[in-house]
Amino acid sequence: MDEIFGIKGQICFSKDLEHLEIAENGIVLCSRGKSLGVFEKLPEAYAHVPVKDYKDALIIPGLIDLHVHAPQFVFRALGLDMELLEWLDVNTFPQEAKYADPAYAKEAYSLIVEDMLKGPNTRAVMFATLHGESAEVLMDLVEQSGLVAYVGKVNMDRNAPDYLCEESAEASAKATVAWLTRTKGKYQHVKPILTPRFIPSCSDQLMQKLQEIQETWDLPVQSHLSENISEIQWVHELCPDTSCYGDAYARYGMFGGRYPSIMAHCVHCPENELDMIKNNGVYIAHCPQSNTNLSSGMAPVRKFLDMGLNVGLGSDVAGGYTTSILRAMADAIGVSKLYWRTVDASAKPLCLEEVFYLGTKGGGAFFGKVGSFEKDYEFDAVVIDDSQYHKCIDLSVKQRLERAIYLSDDRHICAKYVQGRQLF
Amino acid sequence: MDEIFGIKGQICFSKDLEHLEIAENGIVLCSRGKSLGVFEKLPEAYAHVPVKDYKDALIIPGLIDLHVHAPQFVFRALGLDMELLEWLDVNTFPQEAKYADPAYAKEAYSLIVEDMLKGPNTRAVMFATLHGESAEVLMDLVEQSGLVAYVGKVNMDRNAPDYLCEESAEASAKATVAWLTRTKGKYQHVKPILTPRFIPSCSDQLMQKLQEIQETWDLPVQSHLSENISEIQWVHELCPDTSCYGDAYARYGMFGGRYPSIMAHCVHCPENELDMIKNNGVYIAHCPQSNTNLSSGMAPVRKFLDMGLNVGLGSDVAGGYTTSILRAMADAIGVSKLYWRTVDASAKPLCLEEVFYLGTKGGGAFFGKVGSFEKDYEFDAVVIDDSQYHKCIDLSVKQRLERAIYLSDDRHICAKYVQGRQLF
Repeated sequence: MDEIFGIKGQICFSKDLEHLEIAENGIVLCSRGKSLGVFEKLPEAYAHVPVKDYKDALIIPGLIDLHVHAPQFVFRALGLDMELLEWLDVNTFPQEAKYADPAYAKEAYSLIVEDMLKGPNTRAVMFATLHGESAEVLMDLVEQSGLVAYVGKVNMDRNAPDYLCEESAEASAKATVAWLTRTKGKYQHVKPILTPRFIPSCSDQLMQKLQEIQETWDLPVQSHLSENISEIQWVHELCPDTSCYGDAYARYGMFGGRYPSIMAHCVHCPENELDMIKNNGVYIAHCPQSNTNLSSGMAPVRKFLDMGLNVGLGSDVAGGYTTSILRAMADAIGVSKLYWRTVDASAKPLCLEEVFYLGTKGGGAFFGKVGSFEKDYEFDAVVIDDSQYHKCIDLSVKQRLERAIYLSDDRHICAKYVQGRQLF
Repeated sequence: MDEIFGIKGQICFSKDLEHLEIAENGIVLCSRGKSLGVFEKLPEAYAHVPVKDYKDALIIPGLIDLHVHAPQFVFRALGLDMELLEWLDVNTFPQEAKYADPAYAKEAYSLIVEDMLKGPNTRAVMFATLHGESAEVLMDLVEQSGLVAYVGKVNMDRNAPDYLCEESAEASAKATVAWLTRTKGKYQHVKPILTPRFIPSCSDQLMQKLQEIQETWDLPVQSHLSENISEIQWVHELCPDTSCYGDAYARYGMFGGRYPSIMAHCVHCPENELDMIKNNGVYIAHCPQSNTNLSSGMAPVRKFLDMGLNVGLGSDVAGGYTTSILRAMADAIGVSKLYWRTVDASAKPLCLEEVFYLGTKGGGAFFGKVGSFEKDYEFDAVVIDDSQYHKCIDLSVKQRLERAIYLSDDRHICAKYVQGRQLF
């Protein structure tokens, strides 16, 4: 880790939303887990540094999944003829209950960690279940894999079936503190994140206790926001004294500001909610595949970008059925085209440069200087061998990246680095 | 081919749009390339017939791609930040021109035939390019593969760049007859189909000559209809005396009726066009991925089904980037959900049963008794080993089929039969 090394290939990364930086036969140098920048030719001072040459392969920053439900991986791509609230009751809750057993959790969580390891993502912000012991199992597995993650033990003390509902706000808070205490200082690459499931699942008492935990433990928070029309209506009924769904988090200090927060979906945010997101620097996890699968709708991403909001991409497994953020990029483009065609002709569809930024530097910002090869960014890199995709045609590196976004699968990921560590 | 044999496994097929037929540990028998039906237990008369046991694997009818541009496969997943007309000029026409060279055609067409062979499709209705000799190369390759296809040499004599435009209506017609003459009687599994590219590419003189060829050679026809708003406007300008886009085909006898026809897309058909489609029994090739990629819009498939129209699925490579009709099923569901949510709340989203029907029996009807395991249907079968997809969870066969639609790729296709011939 202390030594400087480089990797060489066809390098693509983002500095901003509008431009794709491409270095053909470029070299990214790594020192102590961080990038020293991208070079066309090694500077004199680094002339003797070892460089692994990936030749014609594409090299991109590791991708960031800002929203994924790890326990739902085992039942992804099932029951997708339902909308959110029915899907939770029928499909999700009975499956999540199985994680009461840490042995089951180990077997099931191994599958998603293995899948993520083989794919293009290097970091994720994960929901576990309400079971603290199993959440710890997930953290152990991520740590062992070398990937980086925030993992949250879920809190939920109402509007859930008895078999998947914490007994009281006190019990939920106590289990959370026990989980935090047990895992404190245990990991190098995994951190805890506060995880109230969503407002319908959390009583006011619970939210208040979580706020206290957040302050004591200095934790970021993740949850869901304005995903589905019935859900939003339900929140209005549950919290009649709030100005919007987001306000139901904000009144307990869990909507950005001092403590960073990620809100998944934001498909149907009213104007005042978007303003609050902007003012508080809340991160939006845009999950296009899930929003399609659960008939939630199409998020107004062009508007998010025009407003300068913090946006990244999420797989939302198992609302989404694939963990790959390459696929999320493709889906984000597709949905934005349909949104432009059918909802708002002034909302220009997302282009390649933009979705690539969202899936790398956009989401990476939640982790710090992550998601780019600029100097001082953490050295997460994915090497893609796309040679089978450019037969009979000459392609620029940018064209090859576009094709990799649409076509590549785990067969084409041939090397992966996280924080300077080579995972394979 | 003359011998009776069976294959055994977890069998799924459609008889109608509403129901999925499932035979767990069922056997489909094949005699002379046709199904004898599905049995739970072999009848006495067939007790000694050899049965290949695929055990727990799924067995489905071979899938039907009703609309695919074979020459575009090599540049799939490129330039998708454009709409149809720009995409044709910038992306498509220069690439199609390369098929003037039959040696290039052989190399390039081999890639799509190989891809289709490995995937879940068994039959396709294909556009080639305007080059008759290369169209024949494609027919040769499909024939050798054992797959079944209609292949069309494209006709286009206007509104195309000089390097990809036939000199005159006469020259186009002459080249078509030469191609038909050269390939007549040459193939067992490949048939020609008349292929005017779309109305903007075909002069009235050409359409008239194609009608004569259609009558002389008794040919079905394929083309494009009401895909993109600018395209439709253009057709209105080019054919001011027609009542709709479809009428511009119909006045030359190329819109169903006596000669079967497939029209791809039908995203923006006015009512009178839909009535004409119904009255003439025109087949609609629904291509959801392409309609998204090229920002064309969302086809009103629920309406097509309610009207009882003939509908199948198309990959529309390279408007679409994948040939797999499993993926087209997933995309058809997804787009129908967004259509329901944003365009027409009375248009219930498509469900699993419906898209499975469309990708098998719906499109298969264009080929005759194809796309089902019912008695007398041609024996096309695909065996999917989905074992890696049901770890840690018990699934019904229907659930496994849903998951295969969303998740499976060519790694999971472990055997394939077409007209009773085992391809692998």
